[in-house]
Amino acid sequence: MNILQDISLCEFTPVEEIKKRITKLKERMERNGICLSIILQNVDIFYFTGSLQKAVLLVPIEAEPVLMVEKNTERARIESPVSQISVKNDRDVRNYVKKYLTGKKKCGMELDVLPVNIFQKWKKMLPDCEIEDISKCIREIRAIKSEFELSLIKKSGKIVKKVFEEASKIIKEGEREIDIAAKLEYIGRINGHQGFLRMRGLNQEMMNIYVIHGVSATIPSFGDVPISGCGITHAIAQGPSFNKLMRGVPTLVDYGGGYNGYITDETRLFLIGEWKNETLKKAYECAYHIINEIVSFGKAGLYATELFDKAFSIAKKANLEDYFMGYGETKVSFVGHGVGLEINELPVLTGRHRILLEEGMVFALEPKFIFPGLGASGLEVDFVVREWGLERVVDFPFEAVYL
Amino acid sequence: MNILQDISLCEFTPVEEIKKRITKLKERMERNGICLSIILQNVDIFYFTGSLQKAVLLVPIEAEPVLMVEKNTERARIESPVSQISVKNDRDVRNYVKKYLTGKKKCGMELDVLPVNIFQKWKKMLPDCEIEDISKCIREIRAIKSEFELSLIKKSGKIVKKVFEEASKIIKEGEREIDIAAKLEYIGRINGHQGFLRMRGLNQEMMNIYVIHGVSATIPSFGDVPISGCGITHAIAQGPSFNKLMRGVPTLVDYGGGYNGYITDETRLFLIGEWKNETLKKAYECAYHIINEIVSFGKAGLYATELFDKAFSIAKKANLEDYFMGYGETKVSFVGHGVGLEINELPVLTGRHRILLEEGMVFALEPKFIFPGLGASGLEVDFVVREWGLERVVDFPFEAVYL
Repeated sequence: MNILQDISLCEFTPVEEIKKRITKLKERMERNGICLSIILQNVDIFYFTGSLQKAVLLVPIEAEPVLMVEKNTERARIESPVSQISVKNDRDVRNYVKKYLTGKKKCGMELDVLPVNIFQKWKKMLPDCEIEDISKCIREIRAIKSEFELSLIKKSGKIVKKVFEEASKIIKEGEREIDIAAKLEYIGRINGHQGFLRMRGLNQEMMNIYVIHGVSATIPSFGDVPISGCGITHAIAQGPSFNKLMRGVPTLVDYGGGYNGYITDETRLFLIGEWKNETLKKAYECAYHIINEIVSFGKAGLYATELFDKAFSIAKKANLEDYFMGYGETKVSFVGHGVGLEINELPVLTGRHRILLEEGMVFALEPKFIFPGLGASGLEVDFVVREWGLERVVDFPFEAVYL
Repeated sequence: MNILQDISLCEFTPVEEIKKRITKLKERMERNGICLSIILQNVDIFYFTGSLQKAVLLVPIEAEPVLMVEKNTERARIESPVSQISVKNDRDVRNYVKKYLTGKKKCGMELDVLPVNIFQKWKKMLPDCEIEDISKCIREIRAIKSEFELSLIKKSGKIVKKVFEEASKIIKEGEREIDIAAKLEYIGRINGHQGFLRMRGLNQEMMNIYVIHGVSATIPSFGDVPISGCGITHAIAQGPSFNKLMRGVPTLVDYGGGYNGYITDETRLFLIGEWKNETLKKAYECAYHIINEIVSFGKAGLYATELFDKAFSIAKKANLEDYFMGYGETKVSFVGHGVGLEINELPVLTGRHRILLEEGMVFALEPKFIFPGLGASGLEVDFVVREWGLERVVDFPFEAVYL
């Protein structure tokens, strides 16, 4: 498997990093009286082991973690410093799990994503155990990124930069959203985009790129996102459409970079010619203002609610609150969301949850305005939370790009 | 929302079709003593209603189905003939569900995909109900496609044809797998590819395209697939890599078309110049032979096991059984799989499950051989099961393409 070095990135997670992550998990298990975490979701396994193979990760409170690998054992061995056991079937798995359990104990599993049928199989395997949701703990740990993770997020941001640069060249009057999106997706991929982005939870689906323009930007989707386009088919019901770009009407390019698992998520507004509509122009200026204000204000130690409130109050001052983050039933309650290995990570920037912003958190701030029947305006910029303020991730200005 | 007609396909599911699907579900509910199906997965909701919005579908045995839509209600109304109710929160949902339940009853839910936390919320909402898995019933119904569905699958196949035609032009010595893949993905998208493909279940992920060549084809992934490449990062661990194409070594292009929700999945073998390796050549010839034999043999009324056995016996006769569908721990147990709205549908063509092949089923037959350290050879062709035999889906020859 030395071949891996020649044909893929091979930027493996450092051993010390894996150890720290496991330690954080154990601290939380201790606090919650959990003696064994049984981790099944591929992204969480990747986070705690450095490998994403078909496997089950056991993290016992009183022993070293063990990765039970079904396949590919060889690749898992190369990639992960966590001790490994090769397993072939459920009986193998059960026998190993039993070693860590004597008597009635409390286990942790990812109940936010684990399907009922798989859960019930485990319940049968562990009849004397109480099984509790460990997903909140995992998501909280994952919310704070290490410098190693931030370096990958910044590399992801370099792909985003390339895509926005190309967008400045290819966005032209009369082109279809889908053709622009397809070309930009191509540019991202040959510049090292990992292929797809992950979103946690049932029915959570997304594309790498949204090129959305005019009225198509106003069609809300089923997703918990402010703008996602109408897509070319109601079977997907999101994404770029066959809509053609017009002069004077903003085109939003919302692109998710992906490098070695890590996601960035930014939106730029492109305008061919002069603004045709004052409302959309005003909304763009408001979004721009919101981002600048948050930049001069945000830092570790604040609550996410404070950032949301600041954004909302600016929108309100501009008399745009009815269109802020959507309108009517499809308005979303947040102005930003965490990004990392998944695109819907913590922290969520809403007016509801008082999440403390901590050094190393990464979020996408996306003030957007949707005007039914008219169009949408907005921006999205990623930030690393630092003690001293907010650090940009993507080295491309967030002003509107005039073409 | 008339705008939808101008910028997207709008090939909506006919009312009669929806009625038939619901009737089939009710027949199975009746047989299993289920009085109410509560359907939450987006693809199943799309199948039974014609719309894929944020909603819950209720199918009571004794009344008409109701789609409880959270958002986007306007789009759901345009797309689906099923009666609809707009709901805002869990209390709304509970009140409507209660209408269909009096006393202790048995409900059906999709326990193969439903996360435990969501399931437990429903359990609380329906304390007097027994909840049973309805997913097997749904998957069996969905396995048999109507002529409407087949027409969409064939349109999906047209995208595949375009991609293979383009592949014949752009596959060249020294090109990287990822660059070829990115170009072909672009071609698919501008020709109407829906954007991504769906795969049912926890951790089931896939790309639209795999361009795999030589040794990179021999690196097994975590997935239940024979060949998926090593990818450019271990965080995704599948897909095309940075590997460069060589003369005389086969390149496999495995592409999933997607049109209006429906998937096709075919693989072609491209060879620059003359075969360098006799084993890979022999394996290709064997794969080609298997497909031809299955074509002259397969039809409705046979068991899927018979097709698998035939394929396996041909591989064995050629002394290639150790490499058939993989090697060692990573060998998969099937030679084909159903395709439809998801890529891992029924029927599965294995030696294990005696699934009866019925008129209207669609499967991808993929005899592939993997030789560790050397490379892989193989093909994949989609078929509709008919009374008279097997009907092709993609109008592109399945012989190796010599460049």
